Order: sequence, then structure tokens, then C-alpha cells
Amino acid sequence: MTTTENPIRNGVDTATLFATLDAVKGDPEIAKFQFRATNRWVSGTHNQSTIHGFHGAKQEMAHRVPFTFDADHPPVLVGTDNGPTPVEYVLHALAACLTAGIANVAAARGVNLTEVSSTVEGDIDLLGILGLSDEVRNGYQGIRVSFTLRGDDPEKLRKVVEQSRRRSAVFDVVTNGVPVSIDVDAG
Amino acid sequence: MTTTENPIRNGVDTATLFATLDAVKGDPEIAKFQFRATNRWVSGTHNQSTIHGFHGAKQEMAHRVPFTFDADHPPVLVGTDNGPTPVEYVLHALAACLTAGIANVAAARGVNLTEVSSTVEGDIDLLGILGLSDEVRNGYQGIRVSFTLRGDDPEKLRKVVEQSRRRSAVFDVVTNGVPVSIDVDAG
Repeated sequence: MTTTENPIRNGVDTATLFATLDAVKGDPEIAKFQFRATNRWVSGTHNQSTIHGFHGAKQEMAHRVPFTFDADHPPVLVGTDNGPTPVEYVLHALAACLTAGIANVAAARGVNLTEVSSTVEGDIDLLGILGLSDEVRNGYQGIRVSFTLRGDDPEKLRKVVEQSRRRSAVFDVVTNGVPVSIDVDAG
Repeated sequence: MTTTENPIRNGVDTATLFATLDAVKGDPEIAKFQFRATNRWVSGTHNQSTIHGFHGAKQEMAHRVPFTFDADHPPVLVGTDNGPTPVEYVLHALAACLTAGIANVAAARGVNLTEVSSTVEGDIDLLGILGLSDEVRNGYQGIRVSFTLRGDDPEKLRKVVEQSRRRSAVFDVVTNGVPVSIDVDAG
């Protein structure tokens, strides 16, 4: 196990982080994860997902509680605003992944953080999803993330963000795309 | 305005839905939206996003309340499990977008739904984000969505799912990718 003078930095248990890296190096099968969400339609554009169990480290695991999230459309998009739109959750996921990575990378490098905040903006032209233009894509045309970081040397902080981007799962998904299959039981 | 015999179907106000389509046909600028999320780091891999304001229909708008969401890693990934992982939120967003589309498309086609439920699974090999392999991508290698629908004729239900997929914003983002820019103020 790698040791460190200050095992907790930025709230990250770096001793456990390095021990986890060592464990995965010893048995790469530990790193194969499957995450899941279940969703049920409520009414109109309102639906609710539950996130609880997942597979990882060669076993079935679960979050300490089931997390539930409502999604809906606002009235301007003919919904009842019981939650954010699905596309807004994508922006949250992107910010959250990059921010968690920033905390981990900074801790691993011995860089102290006092603030990490961000705003994510996504531009979307609804002519696509409304079926009113075949030339406009359905999804975001572009997403901008603006980070504010405070802590140690600014140049170190910028390099931490760059490394987080290079190792972010959601950044990869959102920029490069993933194959998605859809099965339907319409019994 | 298009009229319909049953203006509310599946909880969707189809009269307003068709009126919205007519309004956008008359002024396509209405369809240009910008969605946003702000995020602040809490500690370690725990951070929180707020989703409230957005731009659309040529004006600044807001959800009726600010929605807040915690993201974190579970203990097996050196976190404190204060919320789902960012990659799990992506699965939720995908299910939510396809499900909202199913409700809208079915309503527009006069197809009745009694149940729409789904499970989304994403496979990810953490050798990528842990920096232990340059051949393994950071994000999901594949995502599977399994829908169960009940209501009218099964063949109609299957076609509704297919049309929702064809017009889903999150399906487009997740399968095709989006350009993402990142700015850093490291003051």
C-alpha cells in the first residue's frame, strides 16, 4: 500500500485511493462494473428513476439507500415541472463527474482545494425533437463548462482540471458517444 | 390550433402539444433553448448540482423551484455514498428522455398507455478512469435499455418506442456525442 503523509486531502482518503489502485493492478477483474437505473412512467412527461444496486469488484453491491429522481418537462414544453428535464440531468452528470475527478486528482497530487464550482450550459434547438427539421439534431449542439477553482497554485489547479477531463467517464460518454441498444416487451 | 376529441391522453395535454408545434412552425426562434446546471464541490467525490433557470421561447425562464442533486462515489470507489455516481445519472437521463417521448408520441398518435417501465444497464471497465489502461475507454462500453409497455396494440406500442428513440435528445447525445468546451478560472 502506498503511504502518504496526509492520508485525507480535500476530503479524499488518499491512502484508500492508492490501495484501491494497487488492488486493481493485482486483479483487473475488480474494475469491471455495471451500473443500473430503473424508471417508471408516472403521467405525461413525468417519470421517476430509482438507482440502487450495481455490480462491481466481482459482486453485487448497492448504495446505502435507493435514490429516486423525478424528471418532467416544464409547462413551456407541455409538462408539469415535477423535476428537471432529462437533458438537464446530463449537464449535472457532466459537472459532477469532472468535479469528483478534480477532487481525486488534486488529492493524489497533493494539491489543496478550497473551492470548486462550475456552471454548465447546453444549447439545444427543439426543431429537432419536435420533428420540424431534419437538419437539426435532437440533442445539444454544444455544451460549455465553466469552472472556478481556488486553492493551491493556479497553474497546478488548471492541470488538475485537464487531468480530470482526460479521465472522466461522463466527459467520454458525452463527447464520444456510446452504443445503446433498446429492447421492448410490449406483451 | 389542431383539435382532438380527447385533449388529455396518457396525462399529455395533446391540444397544447399540437398548439405548441403550430406556434414553433410560425416562429422557429421559439425552439432555441439553453439548459443549465450549476455545481459546487462539497468534499471528496461528493458534490451538488442545482438546476433552476433556463432560456427558451425567447425569454429567461425557471423551474417552479430550484432542484438540487447530490452525486458521490460509493465506498468501493473511495466515496461516501451521498448520492449516485455521475455515470448513473446518465442512465436515468436516458430512461427519462425515452419515456417522456413515449408518452408524448403515444398521445399524439391516440395510443393509450397503462404502463411504461424500463431498466437501463451500463457496462464500464474502471481500468480506463483509473489510468491503468490506455486501451480501455473512460466511459460506458455499452448501454442496454429494456422497456416494458402495456396499453393498446403491442405493435403500435413498439412503433411508439421506435419513434421516441428517433426523436430523443438524450439518446442522440449519448449515442452520437456532443462537443464540450471547458474553461477554468483558477484565480
